[in-house]
Amino acid sequence: MIKVGIVGGTGYTGVELMRLLLIHPGVVLTTITSRAEAGRPVSDLFPNLRGHLDLRFSDPDSGALQECDVVFFATPHGVAQATVPGLLAKDVRVVDLSADFRIRDIATWERWYKQSHGCPELVQKAVYGLPEMYREDIRGAQLVACPGCYPTSVQLGFLPLLEKGLVDADRLIASSASGTSGAGRQASVDNLLSEVGDSFKAYGASGHRHLPEIEQGLSDINGSAVKLTFVPHLLPIIRGIHSTLYATLKDGNVDLQQLFEDRYRDEPFVDVMPPGSHPQTRSVRGSNHCRMSVFRPDRVDGQPGDTVVVLVVEDNLVKGAAGQAVQNMNLMFGCGESAGLDSPGMMP
Amino acid sequence: MIKVGIVGGTGYTGVELMRLLLIHPGVVLTTITSRAEAGRPVSDLFPNLRGHLDLRFSDPDSGALQECDVVFFATPHGVAQATVPGLLAKDVRVVDLSADFRIRDIATWERWYKQSHGCPELVQKAVYGLPEMYREDIRGAQLVACPGCYPTSVQLGFLPLLEKGLVDADRLIASSASGTSGAGRQASVDNLLSEVGDSFKAYGASGHRHLPEIEQGLSDINGSAVKLTFVPHLLPIIRGIHSTLYATLKDGNVDLQQLFEDRYRDEPFVDVMPPGSHPQTRSVRGSNHCRMSVFRPDRVDGQPGDTVVVLVVEDNLVKGAAGQAVQNMNLMFGCGESAGLDSPGMMP
Amino acid sequence: MIKVGIVGGTGYTGVELMRLLLIHPGVVLTTITSRAEAGRPVSDLFPNLRGHLDLRFSDPDSGALQECDVVFFATPHGVAQATVPGLLAKDVRVVDLSADFRIRDIATWERWYKQSHGCPELVQKAVYGLPEMYREDIRGAQLVACPGCYPTSVQLGFLPLLEKGLVDADRLIASSASGTSGAGRQASVDNLLSEVGDSFKAYGASGHRHLPEIEQGLSDINGSAVKLTFVPHLLPIIRGIHSTLYATLKDGNVDLQQLFEDRYRDEPFVDVMPPGSHPQTRSVRGSNHCRMSVFRPDRVDGQPGDTVVVLVVEDNLVKGAAGQAVQNMNLMFGCGESAGLDSPGMMP
Amino acid sequence: MIKVGIVGGTGYTGVELMRLLLIHPGVVLTTITSRAEAGRPVSDLFPNLRGHLDLRFSDPDSGALQECDVVFFATPHGVAQATVPGLLAKDVRVVDLSADFRIRDIATWERWYKQSHGCPELVQKAVYGLPEMYREDIRGAQLVACPGCYPTSVQLGFLPLLEKGLVDADRLIASSASGTSGAGRQASVDNLLSEVGDSFKAYGASGHRHLPEIEQGLSDINGSAVKLTFVPHLLPIIRGIHSTLYATLKDGNVDLQQLFEDRYRDEPFVDVMPPGSHPQTRSVRGSNHCRMSVFRPDRVDGQPGDTVVVLVVEDNLVKGAAGQAVQNMNLMFGCGESAGLDSPGMMP
Repeated sequence: MIKVGIVGGTGYTGVELMRLLLIHPGVVLTTITSRAEAGRPVSDLFPNLRGHLDLRFSDPDSGALQECDVVFFATPHGVAQATVPGLLAKDVRVVDLSADFRIRDIATWERWYKQSHGCPELVQKAVYGLPEMYREDIRGAQLVACPGCYPTSVQLGFLPLLEKGLVDADRLIASSASGTSGAGRQASVDNLLSEVGDSFKAYGASGHRHLPEIEQGLSDINGSAVKLTFVPHLLPIIRGIHSTLYATLKDGNVDLQQLFEDRYRDEPFVDVMPPGSHPQTRSVRGSNHCRMSVFRPDRVDGQPGDTVVVLVVEDNLVKGAAGQAVQNMNLMFGCGESAGLDSPGMMP
Repeated sequence: MIKVGIVGGTGYTGVELMRLLLIHPGVVLTTITSRAEAGRPVSDLFPNLRGHLDLRFSDPDSGALQECDVVFFATPHGVAQATVPGLLAKDVRVVDLSADFRIRDIATWERWYKQSHGCPELVQKAVYGLPEMYREDIRGAQLVACPGCYPTSVQLGFLPLLEKGLVDADRLIASSASGTSGAGRQASVDNLLSEVGDSFKAYGASGHRHLPEIEQGLSDINGSAVKLTFVPHLLPIIRGIHSTLYATLKDGNVDLQQLFEDRYRDEPFVDVMPPGSHPQTRSVRGSNHCRMSVFRPDRVDGQPGDTVVVLVVEDNLVKGAAGQAVQNMNLMFGCGESAGLDSPGMMP
Repeated sequence: MIKVGIVGGTGYTGVELMRLLLIHPGVVLTTITSRAEAGRPVSDLFPNLRGHLDLRFSDPDSGALQECDVVFFATPHGVAQATVPGLLAKDVRVVDLSADFRIRDIATWERWYKQSHGCPELVQKAVYGLPEMYREDIRGAQLVACPGCYPTSVQLGFLPLLEKGLVDADRLIASSASGTSGAGRQASVDNLLSEVGDSFKAYGASGHRHLPEIEQGLSDINGSAVKLTFVPHLLPIIRGIHSTLYATLKDGNVDLQQLFEDRYRDEPFVDVMPPGSHPQTRSVRGSNHCRMSVFRPDRVDGQPGDTVVVLVVEDNLVKGAAGQAVQNMNLMFGCGESAGLDSPGMMP
Repeated sequence: MIKVGIVGGTGYTGVELMRLLLIHPGVVLTTITSRAEAGRPVSDLFPNLRGHLDLRFSDPDSGALQECDVVFFATPHGVAQATVPGLLAKDVRVVDLSADFRIRDIATWERWYKQSHGCPELVQKAVYGLPEMYREDIRGAQLVACPGCYPTSVQLGFLPLLEKGLVDADRLIASSASGTSGAGRQASVDNLLSEVGDSFKAYGASGHRHLPEIEQGLSDINGSAVKLTFVPHLLPIIRGIHSTLYATLKDGNVDLQQLFEDRYRDEPFVDVMPPGSHPQTRSVRGSNHCRMSVFRPDRVDGQPGDTVVVLVVEDNLVKGAAGQAVQNMNLMFGCGESAGLDSPGMMP
C-alpha cells in the first residue's frame, strides 16, 4: 500500500483527494495537515467523510510527511516551494497541485504571481503532469507539477489540431467557464450564493494567471510559440469546466472527427463524442474523464466555414485537479493508471 | 457474479442503479430494458456511462430477464404487477422500486393509486425492503418492495422514538423536501428549470401517495396505528431529501442523543450526528447513507420544551431508491451489505 | 417629496430599499451612509443602480441624516439603538429594520441578542410595523420597529386562526425556509455557492432569535401566551421565504378558506389563494405581496383530519424587510399605502 | 391610453410583456389571446399577476385584436405571418417578437426555418426594431420586427467597432450563453431542472437560427458582408444573456473605452461600464438595460495584444424580447422611449 500524505487538507481540492483516495485500492491515507485545524477530526469539517475516514488534521511540521511515499500539495501557490525540497531530500515523491512548478520561465512566473520564486532550481526538474502529453516522463518523476484546471481542458482540446499543424497558431481563442469550487473554500463576498447564483459573468478578461501556463503548454505541442486569447467565466454551478475553443483552419481538407478519435483512442480519460454531440459538464461530475466534441460550423449559406470549434468538459476538481493528481500518482507508482478513478460521473 | 437485469432503464432511478452496479464488485449487468428505446446504446442516453457500459436497451419481452438472477423494476407503479409473477415462477428474484408491493391493504393501495391491483396475492409475500427494520426477512425474500424515498427518511427518523413509545403517536408531523429528480425524467412544464429554479413550494398538501406507506410503516414500528401529517415540498436541487420531523414527548426524562446513537450504532448506512449538528443533503450526495440529528428545542425562557425535532437527510436516488435496492440485493445474495455502496458522498 | 436617508446601505436590505425608493413617486433619496465605503459611488457597489442613482456613500456622522424626514436603519442589531434617540430629538421619524426595538421585554431581548440594550426606554414607544395588525398605530408613530422576515410570514399565516381561537395555541409549529440573501452580504465560507448550492439544511434548530419575536406577536394576537416550535431552513435560492405552519383544530366545524379570505379581503399585500393552491416563492420575487393558502389534509382513509396547514410565501427582502419598511413609511406620511409597491412579482 | 393586445400570452415573453405593460403609465391591456387557454383567468396561469390583472385569455379570432392600437406577437415563428396582414389592413400597428419579419432574404429565412414564408411582401416593409440603429424608422413603422435575444447582445457589442471599421470583419466570434427561459415554456425533458441544473453545455454549435439574423445586422452596420462564428450555450439560470465577443484589431492605435462611451452616451438603455469592469447578468435582471465593457487583453509578456474582447449582458426576456418591444412601442406612439422601462435591475 502506498502511504499518502496531503498538505493543505481544508480546501475543496483536499477533500476531493480524500474522496478519491479512500476508494483507491492501493493507498493508505496516513497524514492530512492543516496548521489552522490541527487536532480537529477531518470528518468534522467534511461530514461526507463521516464513517469513512478516522484521521485528524495534523501540524505540517510534525515529521509525519517524511514517512510518506508520496505527498500531495493542495495548497495556494507559494507554499510547496518551501517544503518540497526537504521532502525530496528524504526520497518522498511529490505531486504539487499548485502553480509553483508549472512554469519553466522563472521571470514569467514571478511577474504573474507577484512574488519571487523560492526554489527555481527545482522547476527544471519538475515534470508537467499532463499524462496525455508526458506519460513516460511522469512515470519516473520525483516531482510532478499537476496542471491547472483551465489549462487541462484547453490543452487537451487544442492538442490534436496543433500537433498536426492544422490551425493558425497566432489566433487561438479559449472561452472557458468554471463552477465556483474553482474559487476555493475561502470566506468572500464575491462567491456567496446571493452574489453568483442565478447569474453569469466573465472575470480576469485583461489577463488570468492560467494564460502563461496554457501558452507554454500549447507552444510545446506546436513546436513554436502560439498566441492565445483566454477569457474565463464564472458559472453558478459547483463543479465543472467547459471550454469552447476557436481556431482557424489553414486547410479545409481534413477529417476533424477522425483526427480527434485517432489521437485519443487509447487514452483512458479522454472521450471524443460522436459528431454533432455537445458535452455537458454534468456528464463528468465526480469523474476523471475529459469529454469533448469537434465542430466545423456551416456559414449562413450552408457551406463549411474555416473555423473549428472544440467543446471540452471536465470536472475541475477531478481531471482538473485531484483526479489528475491521482492519475499521476498511479503512473509514478506503477499501479494501473485508472486505479481508483474508474467510477462514472454522477448524472443527474 | 450475480446476473442483473433492469426493467425501465430510461429514468433517473434506472441510470443510478447502473452507476452503482457498475462499481459493484460482484455483479454483471446483463439486460436493461426499455420498450421505447430498444436497440439504442444506453450510453447514448446517459453519456456519463460512455466507456463504462456497452449495452443497448432491449425489449422487455425478449426473454433475457428470465436468465437473470435478480431483476430490478425501476418503473412507474402498475408495471411490475404484470411481469413479476412470471419472473418469480422462473426463480428470478425481484427488487421492485415502484409502489406496487409496498402497501398490504389492497383497498388502500387502490384508492391512492386510482387503479385496481393486478396481483394482490403477491403483496402479502413481498418483504418491505427497509433493512433497518426487516433485515432478516429480506435475506430470504423472493420479492422485495423497496421503500419510497420520502418513506425511508420519515420512518428512519421516527423509528427510535416510536419503538420506545416516547412520543404522542397521534400527532406526528413530517415536513419533507425533495430535489427535482424525485419527479422523474418526464417531459413537463412544471419541472423546467425556468419554473422550479430559484423557487420553493409545497405540493400535495391535501394528500400525497406516500402517506399510506409511511403510516403503515410507522404503525408497524409503534405496534398500533399512528396519525401523521405529511407535507412534501419541492427543492430547486437535483438530488436530496430532507425531512424535518416533529413529535411531542410524553415524558421529558429521556436522553434523545443516546437513544438515537444506541439504535443506529451497528447500522452501516445510518449516521447519527453529534448534538447540535444540522445534516445537509449535500453530505450524502451520491451516497447510500442516511444522516440525522435530534433536537429538543428550548422555549423562549431557555427551558427545554416538550417537542422533539429530528432532521434526516438522504439522497433520494440512492438510499431513497437505487442504493437501498442494491443494499437489499446484497442481503438477498449474501454478498456483504455494503458491497458497491461504500463511497463517500460528493462534497462540494 | 419625502426626504429619505438610509443608514447601512451596503447590505441587501439597503440596496433593496434603494431599488424600491427609486421607483416611489413621492420620495427623494438624499443620504445613504456607510462608514466603510464613505465617498464611493453607491452604483459602484451595486451596478444595477448605474444610471438610476447618483449618490455616494457618506459618513453617518455628517449631519445629513438630521435633515431627512425619515431615516431607515438597514443595520445589524445594536446600531440603531445608539443613533435613533438623537434623530427622534430632531423630529426625524425612524423605520428600523433591525431587531433593536421589536421585543418589549428587555431581559428577553438581552438574553437572545447577548448584549445589553442601549435605550430600553424607546422600546416601549416603538410601534411594531406589521400593518395587518397595527395599521392605525403606525400612522402616528415616530419610531417603527419593522418585523423580521420569518416573523412576518409566520404571524400572517397564524393570524386568522389565533384571532378566532380556533387552534390549540400550545402546539404551534412553523417549518420555515429562507433564501440565502437573508444571511446578508457578509464574507463567509458557510454561504458560498459551493457550500449551499444544490443542497438544503435546517439551522438554528435548538433556538433562533426570531422565536421570541414571533411568540410575542402570536401571543398578542391570541390574547394569551402561545407555544411555538420554529425550525428555519436554508434554501439554495437568493430571495424568498416559505413557511409551512401546522396547528391542531379545536373544532372541525369551520370553513378555513372563508375565514382566511374574510380576514385578508381588504389587505393590499396579503393574497389568499384558491383552495388547493400551493404558493411558490417565485410568485412574489421582488414584490411586497405575501401569498398564502390553507389546507386541512385528509387522513389515509379519506376523512378530514384535525390538523390545519397554512402555506405562506413572501420575498424576504421585500415584505420581509425593505418593502414592508416602505409600506410603513407610506402609512406614516399618508401617501397611499401601496405607493411604489404595486409592481407584480418577477416570474419566471 | 394606448390599447394593447397580446397574441400568445402563455409563454415567458408574454407574461413579461404583461408585467412591463402593467406598470406602464400610458397603456391599457385589453386583450390577451391563447387558443388553448381561452376563458381561463390569466392570473391563474401566472400567479404573480394575481391582484394586478383581471383579464381572461380570449380566442385570437374574436375580433378584439382589431380594436387595439397595437398588437404584440409573442408567438413561435410562423404564426404572425398569417395574422399580421389583416391587422395592418385595419390600421392596427404590430410589434412582432418572433422571427417572422427579421430576415430580408426570403430564401435564407426559409432555409433556416424550414418552411415557406407566408407573406414575403411584408418583410420588406417591416422595420428591424433595434432602436440603437433604426430609431427614426421605428417611429413611423406600422410593423416592427423585434430582434432576437442573442442578436441584440451581439449586434450592440460589435456595433462601435464595425461602424468605424476597426476590426477584421471576416473573423468575428461570439461565444454567447443564455438562461433557460430562452427555451420557452414548453414541456420537455431537455430543460428540466434535473437535466440542466448544476451543468453547462453548448448547443447548436453546427449552426443556430440566430446566425443569419446577426450576420445581416452586422453586415448592415459594416457596410459589407461579415463572417461570424456564433456558439450559444445554455446556462443554469432563469434569465440573462452574456455574450463574449472576440475580434482582431486592424490597427492598435485606438482608445476603445472612449469609442464605446462616445457611441452609447445618449442611449437610454446601453451602459458602458468603467475600464476593467465585468458585467454580470444579474445586474440587468428584470431591466431593459444592456450593459457592456470592452477589453484589449495583454499578452503573456505584458504587451497589449491585437484581440479586442467585448462583454455584453442583457435580460433575454426584457432587452432581448419584451422590454425592447415596449421600447419600440414607445417610439411608435411618441410616449417617451423609457416609459414603463425605468426600473433598476433586481439585485441580489
